[in-house]
Amino acid sequence: MLLGQVAGKVWATKKSPALTGQALLTVAVDGALLVCADCVGAGEGERVLVATGGAARVAAGAHIPIDAAIVGIIDGP
Amino acid sequence: MLLGQVAGKVWATKKSPALTGQALLTVAVDGALLVCADCVGAGEGERVLVATGGAARVAAGAHIPIDAAIVGIIDGP
Amino acid sequence: MLLGQVAGKVWATKKSPALTGQALLTVAVDGALLVCADCVGAGEGERVLVATGGAARVAAGAHIPIDAAIVGIIDGP
Amino acid sequence: MLLGQVAGKVWATKKSPALTGQALLTVAVDGALLVCADCVGAGEGERVLVATGGAARVAAGAHIPIDAAIVGIIDGP
Amino acid sequence: MLLGQVAGKVWATKKSPALTGQALLTVAVDGALLVCADCVGAGEGERVLVATGGAARVAAGAHIPIDAAIVGIIDGP
Repeated sequence: MLLGQVAGKVWATKKSPALTGQALLTVAVDGALLVCADCVGAGEGERVLVATGGAARVAAGAHIPIDAAIVGIIDGP
Repeated sequence: MLLGQVAGKVWATKKSPALTGQALLTVAVDGALLVCADCVGAGEGERVLVATGGAARVAAGAHIPIDAAIVGIIDGP
Repeated sequence: MLLGQVAGKVWATKKSPALTGQALLTVAVDGALLVCADCVGAGEGERVLVATGGAARVAAGAHIPIDAAIVGIIDGP
Repeated sequence: MLLGQVAGKVWATKKSPALTGQALLTVAVDGALLVCADCVGAGEGERVLVATGGAARVAAGAHIPIDAAIVGIIDGP
Repeated sequence: MLLGQVAGKVWATKKSPALTGQALLTVAVDGALLVCADCVGAGEGERVLVATGGAARVAAGAHIPIDAAIVGIIDGP
């Protein structure tokens, strides 16, 4: 998994129907920006744990077109 | 998922039969060019959300040989 | 998917049995060389569309150990 | 798979329920930091073998939202 | 798939049980080192074909925690 920091939100009125209602956050990871489905209620600026690929759909518990999901909010060092 | 901008269209008369009728757009992502199946009717120049890997086939709702798909048109900041 | 250009062929007499009879071409993609299963009969120098990961096995229509496949010959710009 | 060195632990009180009880270690791989599920009881500083993608879930033997797992402690050169 | 050159062997006494008996070789690919399950009996210095992701498990013919496998020994140019 990847460590990142929540940078903001993404809105897309026109999108795959299966993404309706799914919160999408931008996360800065190693200088790049990933859009992640938020599965734990993360907020802007928080350090988060991101799972990618099929693991994202496991986190969402649904067959939806996502390849990255926030699966934890880091509270360690 | 990745944020990108639609750069143009791709035509391939000789292709896997399963791709017949599937619109293919080039999307600029972090300086590289990805070819994506268009699942939401995006147009040239629009900022889009791209899902990769198995998520692309979930977006297309079909067992077709794609590994990247446009799943949203960004209307946020 | 990725855009690339066919660079040549690869021979491997000693290989996974499931790859027997599968044409393998080297494709230049963004300065790197990928070995792809050829699913459309591409020739040297042609610009091609490459699908990676599970999509390659979907293109080949078989449970074979490939992670990249040529799924189209580009005839656009 | 990737060779890496265990750098430390990660704590996330707020996380996907399926990750409860799963030890998460940071592993330095080629200058980047990956968070891995620990499947073999690795310790800080040890050289480890990391499997990514679906292989991580195979290592954990469970349908949990992970995309990287430590699957061996290197005792060779 | 990737072209690489076998660099050496990897030993891990403490490892996922499913990896027991599986030969693991280090392969130099584009300047990085990948650890691959050897499915064709490759030797040090040989140029090899590496399949990654789910294709590695297809090559091994087993549900084991690997994400890279040697699937051919290159005998072409």
